[in-house]
Amino acid sequence: MIQGLDHIAIAVLDLDIAIDEWTRMTGAVLTHREHIIEQGANVAFLLLGNLRLELIAADKPDSALSRFIQKRGPGLHHIALKTSDGQLVLDDFCSKGARVIDSHLRQGAENSMVGFVHPGALGGVLIEVVQNTTS
Amino acid sequence: MIQGLDHIAIAVLDLDIAIDEWTRMTGAVLTHREHIIEQGANVAFLLLGNLRLELIAADKPDSALSRFIQKRGPGLHHIALKTSDGQLVLDDFCSKGARVIDSHLRQGAENSMVGFVHPGALGGVLIEVVQNTTS
Repeated sequence: MIQGLDHIAIAVLDLDIAIDEWTRMTGAVLTHREHIIEQGANVAFLLLGNLRLELIAADKPDSALSRFIQKRGPGLHHIALKTSDGQLVLDDFCSKGARVIDSHLRQGAENSMVGFVHPGALGGVLIEVVQNTTS
Repeated sequence: MIQGLDHIAIAVLDLDIAIDEWTRMTGAVLTHREHIIEQGANVAFLLLGNLRLELIAADKPDSALSRFIQKRGPGLHHIALKTSDGQLVLDDFCSKGARVIDSHLRQGAENSMVGFVHPGALGGVLIEVVQNTTS
């Protein structure tokens, strides 16, 4: 079962500049930075009241994230939905005819397990299913 | 002060089809529908665990929302941030050099007062400041 929002992910051109903009403009607080090799991305997590934001910058020019930014520019990238049973949620999307990018959970940021659902399944919105293993 | 997320807004081509997709695929529950004349939009609010989603469909071809969909296709449109002092938050964005679309709060959905900040201020992310008047 989907419990709600884990975080909103925003594609950025330069991670340091984006961190500065979001903290200065909104009062968000930087909580974590990480290099995710599998996704070819440098990410930063910020907390803005009850909202977790993930800023993601591509670390190589041929990644899916790079192609996204080249095509659409920086901005909203995906929403991450929280669950305690990620594989069940991915299987449920599949059984309802959704195309999933990851048929099995894989390593995500902050020791989470994640899987992506193709944006074609939900009107152009890229969905990440997140199962936190530490909480 | 920004308290966190009020809702995530998603631009859709057809409101009824989008409501059906999101409720069927994710288990989200429809809570409210409304026609917002000022924004030239038909909107639906859904609750997915702790996450409020707003699906927005243009009701005329020459609105900003129509132009967004024509240019970028349906998908993530903006994030709405909750506050109890919306005008102060808008003024604060202005004082930090952000371009605001609404310099003063105006009527939004569900009797809220809202104001938009231009996506140029925060790396391509359109921000809605929301002050709920009923809560």
